[in-house]
Amino acid sequence: MIFGADYYPEHWPEERWREDAALMKKIGINTIRIGEFGWSVIERKEGEIDFSLYDRAISLFAEYGIQTIMGTPTAAPPAWLCQKYPDIYMMNRHGDMRGYGSRRHYCYNHKGYRKETERVVKMVARHYSHNDNVIAWQVDNELGCEDDVLCYCDRCRKAFTDWLIRKYGTLERVNEAWGTVFWSQTYTEWEQIIVPKDTVVDGYTGNGHNPGLMQDFKRFSSDSMYRYAKLQTEILREESNKIITHNMVSEQSDNYRLAELFDTIGYDAYPYSEWDHNSPGRIGFLYDLSRGYADKPLWILEQQSGPCGWNVLGETPKSGQLKLWSQQAASRGIEALIYFRWRTCPFGAEQYWYGILDHDGVPGKRYQEIGQAISSIQENEEYLRLPEKKKVLLVYDYDNKFCHDEQPHVRGFVYKEEVVRYYEALRRIHVPVRVGSLAENLDAYELVILPFISMIGKEDAERISRYVKNGGNIILTPFSGQRRINNQITTEILPGVFRNMSGVTIASFHAMEREIIPYEEIGNMQLWREELKLDNAESFRKNWISPEGGPLVSENRYGNGRVFYISCCMEAYDRMLQEICRETGTASGYGDIPECVECIEKSNCLILMNHSGEKQQVLLKGYRDIRNEKSSIIMEEYGFAVAVSS
Amino acid sequence: MIFGADYYPEHWPEERWREDAALMKKIGINTIRIGEFGWSVIERKEGEIDFSLYDRAISLFAEYGIQTIMGTPTAAPPAWLCQKYPDIYMMNRHGDMRGYGSRRHYCYNHKGYRKETERVVKMVARHYSHNDNVIAWQVDNELGCEDDVLCYCDRCRKAFTDWLIRKYGTLERVNEAWGTVFWSQTYTEWEQIIVPKDTVVDGYTGNGHNPGLMQDFKRFSSDSMYRYAKLQTEILREESNKIITHNMVSEQSDNYRLAELFDTIGYDAYPYSEWDHNSPGRIGFLYDLSRGYADKPLWILEQQSGPCGWNVLGETPKSGQLKLWSQQAASRGIEALIYFRWRTCPFGAEQYWYGILDHDGVPGKRYQEIGQAISSIQENEEYLRLPEKKKVLLVYDYDNKFCHDEQPHVRGFVYKEEVVRYYEALRRIHVPVRVGSLAENLDAYELVILPFISMIGKEDAERISRYVKNGGNIILTPFSGQRRINNQITTEILPGVFRNMSGVTIASFHAMEREIIPYEEIGNMQLWREELKLDNAESFRKNWISPEGGPLVSENRYGNGRVFYISCCMEAYDRMLQEICRETGTASGYGDIPECVECIEKSNCLILMNHSGEKQQVLLKGYRDIRNEKSSIIMEEYGFAVAVSS
Amino acid sequence: MIFGADYYPEHWPEERWREDAALMKKIGINTIRIGEFGWSVIERKEGEIDFSLYDRAISLFAEYGIQTIMGTPTAAPPAWLCQKYPDIYMMNRHGDMRGYGSRRHYCYNHKGYRKETERVVKMVARHYSHNDNVIAWQVDNELGCEDDVLCYCDRCRKAFTDWLIRKYGTLERVNEAWGTVFWSQTYTEWEQIIVPKDTVVDGYTGNGHNPGLMQDFKRFSSDSMYRYAKLQTEILREESNKIITHNMVSEQSDNYRLAELFDTIGYDAYPYSEWDHNSPGRIGFLYDLSRGYADKPLWILEQQSGPCGWNVLGETPKSGQLKLWSQQAASRGIEALIYFRWRTCPFGAEQYWYGILDHDGVPGKRYQEIGQAISSIQENEEYLRLPEKKKVLLVYDYDNKFCHDEQPHVRGFVYKEEVVRYYEALRRIHVPVRVGSLAENLDAYELVILPFISMIGKEDAERISRYVKNGGNIILTPFSGQRRINNQITTEILPGVFRNMSGVTIASFHAMEREIIPYEEIGNMQLWREELKLDNAESFRKNWISPEGGPLVSENRYGNGRVFYISCCMEAYDRMLQEICRETGTASGYGDIPECVECIEKSNCLILMNHSGEKQQVLLKGYRDIRNEKSSIIMEEYGFAVAVSS
Repeated sequence: MIFGADYYPEHWPEERWREDAALMKKIGINTIRIGEFGWSVIERKEGEIDFSLYDRAISLFAEYGIQTIMGTPTAAPPAWLCQKYPDIYMMNRHGDMRGYGSRRHYCYNHKGYRKETERVVKMVARHYSHNDNVIAWQVDNELGCEDDVLCYCDRCRKAFTDWLIRKYGTLERVNEAWGTVFWSQTYTEWEQIIVPKDTVVDGYTGNGHNPGLMQDFKRFSSDSMYRYAKLQTEILREESNKIITHNMVSEQSDNYRLAELFDTIGYDAYPYSEWDHNSPGRIGFLYDLSRGYADKPLWILEQQSGPCGWNVLGETPKSGQLKLWSQQAASRGIEALIYFRWRTCPFGAEQYWYGILDHDGVPGKRYQEIGQAISSIQENEEYLRLPEKKKVLLVYDYDNKFCHDEQPHVRGFVYKEEVVRYYEALRRIHVPVRVGSLAENLDAYELVILPFISMIGKEDAERISRYVKNGGNIILTPFSGQRRINNQITTEILPGVFRNMSGVTIASFHAMEREIIPYEEIGNMQLWREELKLDNAESFRKNWISPEGGPLVSENRYGNGRVFYISCCMEAYDRMLQEICRETGTASGYGDIPECVECIEKSNCLILMNHSGEKQQVLLKGYRDIRNEKSSIIMEEYGFAVAVSS
Repeated sequence: MIFGADYYPEHWPEERWREDAALMKKIGINTIRIGEFGWSVIERKEGEIDFSLYDRAISLFAEYGIQTIMGTPTAAPPAWLCQKYPDIYMMNRHGDMRGYGSRRHYCYNHKGYRKETERVVKMVARHYSHNDNVIAWQVDNELGCEDDVLCYCDRCRKAFTDWLIRKYGTLERVNEAWGTVFWSQTYTEWEQIIVPKDTVVDGYTGNGHNPGLMQDFKRFSSDSMYRYAKLQTEILREESNKIITHNMVSEQSDNYRLAELFDTIGYDAYPYSEWDHNSPGRIGFLYDLSRGYADKPLWILEQQSGPCGWNVLGETPKSGQLKLWSQQAASRGIEALIYFRWRTCPFGAEQYWYGILDHDGVPGKRYQEIGQAISSIQENEEYLRLPEKKKVLLVYDYDNKFCHDEQPHVRGFVYKEEVVRYYEALRRIHVPVRVGSLAENLDAYELVILPFISMIGKEDAERISRYVKNGGNIILTPFSGQRRINNQITTEILPGVFRNMSGVTIASFHAMEREIIPYEEIGNMQLWREELKLDNAESFRKNWISPEGGPLVSENRYGNGRVFYISCCMEAYDRMLQEICRETGTASGYGDIPECVECIEKSNCLILMNHSGEKQQVLLKGYRDIRNEKSSIIMEEYGFAVAVSS
Repeated sequence: MIFGADYYPEHWPEERWREDAALMKKIGINTIRIGEFGWSVIERKEGEIDFSLYDRAISLFAEYGIQTIMGTPTAAPPAWLCQKYPDIYMMNRHGDMRGYGSRRHYCYNHKGYRKETERVVKMVARHYSHNDNVIAWQVDNELGCEDDVLCYCDRCRKAFTDWLIRKYGTLERVNEAWGTVFWSQTYTEWEQIIVPKDTVVDGYTGNGHNPGLMQDFKRFSSDSMYRYAKLQTEILREESNKIITHNMVSEQSDNYRLAELFDTIGYDAYPYSEWDHNSPGRIGFLYDLSRGYADKPLWILEQQSGPCGWNVLGETPKSGQLKLWSQQAASRGIEALIYFRWRTCPFGAEQYWYGILDHDGVPGKRYQEIGQAISSIQENEEYLRLPEKKKVLLVYDYDNKFCHDEQPHVRGFVYKEEVVRYYEALRRIHVPVRVGSLAENLDAYELVILPFISMIGKEDAERISRYVKNGGNIILTPFSGQRRINNQITTEILPGVFRNMSGVTIASFHAMEREIIPYEEIGNMQLWREELKLDNAESFRKNWISPEGGPLVSENRYGNGRVFYISCCMEAYDRMLQEICRETGTASGYGDIPECVECIEKSNCLILMNHSGEKQQVLLKGYRDIRNEKSSIIMEEYGFAVAVSS
């Protein structure tokens, strides 16, 4: 397995490299990632090519058995390049150019930058394609992460128009799909097509653009990023046979599609940072979402190695959390675990992004803890790499993300976070879950949860219908079947394409901006609820009833399967899912495990992780701790254990 | 009486129209409003005129006895028109153009758009002036509502300069009026005149512009909108004799002046939406403010028919509230009640603006409830249309709104909301109130409340003085008489023009950003208080005393009338107004009516409306329920009753 | 001593001047400040010079013994001048020009404005240099206060580049200093240098620019302002011998450096305003910070004389506070106390900035209170002007402010406010403190507090080291010694240059965005804490221990002195400082004085000020009240007393 560190040889005196290599080796690091921000290093001025610094670094680290993942350097266009193309930058929706000074300051549709990209990627690929110490390529870095997928420049306006021409052929079809008859927005010439910049209603509401246009603009923007990445992967494949990866962290693009381009899925994991303070469940969700992007190996290209942020730091991880998060990643069967970064950089915008070593380069607490993490993962690798049991599929979909993010129905509803609530509940009740797209092979699962699948095409709906008929179980939720794929709301009776299989009609709904309805058994209902009229369905639990007296959850036999409709948003779904999982045979029976102990079920074993800062007792049924053969385990603060079936 | 629905025939298959007409007829709808966003429908491309779709719709609905209100289509300049005039848009104060993509994206001072407006309005007027199924014109739609009255483009800068030339004649007079000697802002050439865009102090305070300039810029902007509307009404009057109306919802313009242009006052009522969650009193205030715009019939051109918002929805009305809000509108003696909209649109920015029917077109709960609302109003029409008793005038003034909005004295003070507090109190204590301008005939009232009338001209002050001398009663409040009409603060001793009649001097004041002073009897004092020195006045209630020991409310005999000065802002004015109304003979004596039951007194009858979600008991004195002749009424949740004098 | 009022003769009818002069004289006012916004007054149009209005005013006031401080009128470029130079304005980081309409709307690097400045300053200087009634010059007004130090225009970009050329000589040195190797930001031509405008990461984090560039850009901007001020002081010195002053209120520039230009330090004191609601300690800090700018007389050029704000008012001062704040200023030994402003202006952006008189010009409460303030200060002048005892130096540093403001480590950390916490604690425990720069003569103090001195040069560190070796005591805090002067983080082991003298190593740290750790004895720990490893140091108080069991405060003997390291941020430092002051002999022993009573120790006397709205009892040890010779004093609400040593 790959254990690595993100290293930037250009940041340190060459005399120091050897000491770093030795320190890495000592704790089991066998790989470095370099180069993704190194354009100036290999081409200080236009045409002055010099790979020698990286060549020397790669050789020196190889002496210590440390291999290299090489980044294409497009993540940081140098100053000379931006001087050459003064219009290289993205434009925000107010029409302001977002200029030089950070990184990835380029528009995906800038022809000059695409040309320079071709040139530099080819150059890097040719230089290292036959270097055996280079084991893989990373394309650029975290595409889309700097709030930079949506660009409103005139170049993008034209590219968007071309994209629409390719998609729709005629303006009539555009007008039809978007419903431009509303507010006289009928387009009669392609030149009239806009990108959704500021309008006169912006002070009034966030965005008053046509929803069909918005959805297509987001798809186009996602596609622009995809095509930029593809430009690189095509060159890399032409020039070499090495593995291609990319650290996918943006949620502004369709990552299932992007993932097609790579051999391994890369992900950057920062449970606590300036921007995030993730719950254990949310950390797990993010690992599992990345895994779900494709049926390909998962590489953690950046794993948190210390407190981090740009101008402010996120909460400092407690002693033991860095290790636990590494084990949590490993429990997903990853192939690579690379820590960002080896040593904290004394200059640049990431001065506060703490690496394994502090600025001073002296091994300290974090070096020790990460060494322990690597040892522990190596020790348990046989278990960690076992295939995982997955009875439940939780669907996460970008088309639905795009439309919910723009029109969330009610203040406070955030698609991703509401899906995470389902995931968190499943983890707390220890049900094995996979996160994946609508395109998954449903038959592999006993239960498919389709949270907030408002937008759905006919074919997907039919696949789901067949799955249920053949004995599958699904959970539907508010908003199900509401939208057509062109982002129009269906004129069918709701839940639209799901109506027949669910056996219910949505009689009414309640936007609950200011209201929370507490239930003693199932907790707080909030944000949104629908009133279900039972057509063929039955009430799932007779005592779960709405203020109007109707069922909160319905259950419908459909073919050989069952359809559950959860009619409301809850603060926590634990109890509801417990009952549905029991009914569908997807509940786990590992014994008595506290909520805060995450439990990953592999074939024949359990990986147990205590996310709390206190000791926890676990009483297993049918499993025993590999260390002492006991089924009763006292787990340390942020502790880890493996249990095998007894 | 007109019962209507806002209908957009262009949004639906022609085959569906007939079903809609039949469904409308069934619940009493006799009118549709169409066309206000239909420019592309009648002129898909420049010069390709085709009225046939609307012609067919008007005819078909007429078959069902349903008449049409026709909108001029200027509320949505088509894409081809905006392509023709790329500079048609408004500019925000940062200098960014607010472009295409929503609606009403035009500058009122754009010559090209004014020309196109003339052309299209003339065309529509000529086409339908002799169509008897068209009963009225609506001009554009909700002028000023999209945060779009203030435009900072260079065109508007020139128009503002011309406006100033007309108003002042010379720059000397401008300099004098604005006090430009402050900070060396003396203008010496007309070309130097600015519109109040961003300045260097914007990060420091909201706006650091000269208050005289700001006030005139707002008056100019209001005037620009007025002149744009007038351009249309003049053409319509020239071409036809039909009623002209407009839905007035913007609070950025002087609506008393705008109302002069129309035959009936239009208003759009959305008690709960993405932006508002109105108290019963505030809903009533908005109806009454609209009524106060002019002594003309009130038409509700859009009445809420379901939950609504653009990207998020406001709270869903409780069962019964849609009906109650309709009755509440009707209690104001309206002539027309038109629901927005008939059926929820599956596309465009208002996908979440729920109509009488859902997207699916199937009559449901809301169809039933609105049907009941119409029946109930029809049944009680004889009572609802009776003239209303109005003993009290509550003055609402745009010059004061403009200056208070810009310089609210203390964080948290919002002119409109503070006037609403007076209104709410009056409704809770069941005192009949009219909302109106300073220009009202005061002699029609026994009490005139002048809340926060800081800016006031000499003539108005003299009219008020005469009114009091002749036996009238007025209430003054903090800020009274503070400003001259040019937005300079008076150098007279405060309360300036009101000093003589009030018999008090403002000795001092307290901005109370962080302080609330609770009084057991009268509730919380907050935001602002003044210290009154009694010249001729007396303390109104001896136990209402300020922290310094002075009176909170003074009372002065002036001629035959009385002047009350309420020296502070209160959270609620119920108790204070109760006492003053008792003294001035304006208190009502209808019996024992809970606060939450709104009571509108007509000649000889009371309209009672229960705004709470619980049953309420009403014990009337001198009135009896028309249904059962009893004076004790149990009102249902959101219930309605009519009582006649016994 | 100078007692004054800011007067604007151009705002008032000339007939009124005489009355104002008489009213001023009556309460002891002997000086007016005029002219700083009067460019249009003396040059209404370009070249039409006319000083007569100011000449007449100066003469008339001189008749009453009232002298004049004359402002250079550059604080308000007239409309004609801005018309002449349409590009005179500053640009914000989004690239928007911040235009005409408030004041000080000019870019410091605009050549045309610099030329006009030269011309007008020379003209004013020549006109009044021989007028004996003019006693001093004020340069411009509150340079930098309108959020206007950082300008992003192309002019400033070029000026910044030139500044870098002067500072670094070669781009190699720039690249080295900034660490541009990070993210490929290596500059290869001077033309590539940017000013830090918006980038693609702005929606993501506040600012993603290179920290070295940011620090230099702030230094450059501070320098631009300095050079603009210097342009004026050089002319003034050439033309006259009068005192030159300036009201320094911006915290965006290095005020120690700016202060070099002036003969007296000017400061504008507004304890309560639209923007501030200062604690007594914070008010004191601001006076003392101003005093610390240079060893020059302190002039209060604007002292609050009423409630104030632009569009909203800050809290109205309680009766007695205006007087107390004046006495508090006087307790610092000031030479001038000038109230802003004489009479409240009825027009312009400062209509709500209440002066000594209201708009009506009638002497009222505030006139009385300020009269009493002046009398009281005159009575006690012999005590108030005595030199102050200062045992403790609290260091405040602009290089550290610049870098902490940009990268505050943790949300909620604001450098200035965290330094103020130290000051507030010292005042509450009545320890005499001076605020000053790193360049102070340390040997004059027994204890030097160096809060959050992250950035420090070698020489300063060495001076500090020598001071301690020679017997001095210092307090270090989190972040000490973290940064090099080029804003790179040191690669030495922390606390870097302070490691040897402190005898500790920073083993780890905890960013505490969400965590507060309460201690019974010392209060709440918050924001940030470090784990200390004791090398040579000892734990200062054995029971003050971190969650890990290490010391919260260490103490190290170094040479003849001692170094304390406070390892965490506290809500209040009272207890910690009490103990350290006791150990270092800097604690005061004045008796029993409540926290809310500020106590300034002069040679031989104490100035006592009660900042609470309630009476307070003071029991002095070794001092007695000058009024009644008693050592027990009952202080009135907002009361003042002087006690001399007995």
